[in-house]
Amino acid sequence: MKIDFERAVALLKEKDNIVILTHASPDGDTIGGGYALMLALQKLGKKARVINNDKIPEKFFRIINNEQSVAFSEKYVVSVDVADSKLLGSVVQAQYGDRIDLAIDHHQSNTLFAKETYLEGDSASACEVVYLLIEALGVETDREIADCLFMGMSTDTGCFRYSSVTPRTHRLAAQLIESGAQHAKINTLMFETKKLGFFRLQAACLEKMEMYFSGKVAVMTVTRKMLEETGCEDSDLDAIAALSRQVEGVKVGVTVKEKPDGQFKVSVRTDEDVDASKICAHFGGGGHVRAAGCTFGSSLEKSKEELLKMIENMI
Amino acid sequence: MKIDFERAVALLKEKDNIVILTHASPDGDTIGGGYALMLALQKLGKKARVINNDKIPEKFFRIINNEQSVAFSEKYVVSVDVADSKLLGSVVQAQYGDRIDLAIDHHQSNTLFAKETYLEGDSASACEVVYLLIEALGVETDREIADCLFMGMSTDTGCFRYSSVTPRTHRLAAQLIESGAQHAKINTLMFETKKLGFFRLQAACLEKMEMYFSGKVAVMTVTRKMLEETGCEDSDLDAIAALSRQVEGVKVGVTVKEKPDGQFKVSVRTDEDVDASKICAHFGGGGHVRAAGCTFGSSLEKSKEELLKMIENMI
Repeated sequence: MKIDFERAVALLKEKDNIVILTHASPDGDTIGGGYALMLALQKLGKKARVINNDKIPEKFFRIINNEQSVAFSEKYVVSVDVADSKLLGSVVQAQYGDRIDLAIDHHQSNTLFAKETYLEGDSASACEVVYLLIEALGVETDREIADCLFMGMSTDTGCFRYSSVTPRTHRLAAQLIESGAQHAKINTLMFETKKLGFFRLQAACLEKMEMYFSGKVAVMTVTRKMLEETGCEDSDLDAIAALSRQVEGVKVGVTVKEKPDGQFKVSVRTDEDVDASKICAHFGGGGHVRAAGCTFGSSLEKSKEELLKMIENMI
Repeated sequence: MKIDFERAVALLKEKDNIVILTHASPDGDTIGGGYALMLALQKLGKKARVINNDKIPEKFFRIINNEQSVAFSEKYVVSVDVADSKLLGSVVQAQYGDRIDLAIDHHQSNTLFAKETYLEGDSASACEVVYLLIEALGVETDREIADCLFMGMSTDTGCFRYSSVTPRTHRLAAQLIESGAQHAKINTLMFETKKLGFFRLQAACLEKMEMYFSGKVAVMTVTRKMLEETGCEDSDLDAIAALSRQVEGVKVGVTVKEKPDGQFKVSVRTDEDVDASKICAHFGGGGHVRAAGCTFGSSLEKSKEELLKMIENMI
């Protein structure tokens, strides 16, 4: 059931012994929002802690403090930035999936899996929503909370770059800097620093990038061998998928990634004129108009040829 | 002579037939600020136009409109984002260098070359300063003006990433989005789209990057041959110089660029613990604590060895 802002504030005020869940493969927004909410609830004298299904990437620990309160018997379960209970990760889902009391989220696609859901579908990040809730709870945003919230707002908007950014996003960022958020440090850590292997993988991908149709289509292929040679993991590939579309003149960027099982995961990114979901639907996949995906079996070359023919007809 | 905000507003209100000068090798801030001021003055019924020494890069024309007013006899000369009359470029400097009436700027290092200077040395961009002046002139910020100002504010802060960003920067960005600034389009154009040759050059540089002292120092070398093979120009090298420092664990990033005359331009970027200007001063160069430069003669290998030895002693 969807609830309004006042109800969400009232629930957080009333409850105690609160477990806060983040989504699996945690990003800056779910981690930042989860820890900010934990810190705020603790400042109100409540017991609260964050539970993650997966290991939190090291870089987040240069911003957040992982100290948790002592054990307590859980009485209330909140999720932050989780669109579907499936996204909690298998261990957390098994334990909490069917007994989440309150979901705080910003995904239009939220499946309303929780007993009560406070959803702001047009918010650029979950952290914006958490920030407003924390303010309404009367908690002062100290530097630690400000760092968490800024991290989420910045990472979920590509450092204020995406179309999801609203005037509110910028105004809340201004407030967080005034509260002491280490904005420049956070942005450097989240957007500038990359491991050497990632740069090597990027170089290898660019080296072998194939251009078609007068440079309108770019195809990058990432093999298991390339991942092994550069010490990269599948989680590094999100940033790679965005690369080909950034080449001037490219309308359709295709990234083909070899999966451990020998199949190929295909990501298609397009500009305003080409429907990526239509392209991928043809191959049994789907997604959004600008970003979609599908899977190719072992006959990579044949599938690639078919994909290119289809794209040629669309541009 | 430095003047205050009110005096600057009064001058712009009073004067007419205004020429606005940008700096050479124009960036988004000087172009955005110059054109925004021109549009605002024209909305007040004044004659105004922008004069650039150099060709304006194509991508800016997807945001600004280059339509200029008809010719008029110049009566007042304003510079925007120009720290020194030398930076106007040789042609413009020869014509206007010694008769600039008003400089609007945000560089602490401004040499006060103009008759009167309105300087906000702690502003993240010249466009922030121009925006406040335009508001004080009573001009409504329409979409065209908002686009110009947003372009300058965003490009001069690396899309709100640098430590120069203040709460005011974010608040003004929020206002500009409300005035219709095409923030997402501008950010994509300025930060995401790069020519294919640039990616190829980046790949070539990364491929050959040398790591020293357990990965604490990274050295990249860019030869004329690499520039020729990838179709890149010297102006593409700024973004390359920042690359090596972005590698996780690197404290000192060195980029060595072969100049047309066979000498080598060396850029040194460092993290908090190492003084780049000290390193470069040893080789007759200089700069800032985090970013400095110097020049090596033809004995590249010998100079590089000396540089590495010096860095080794500092880390």
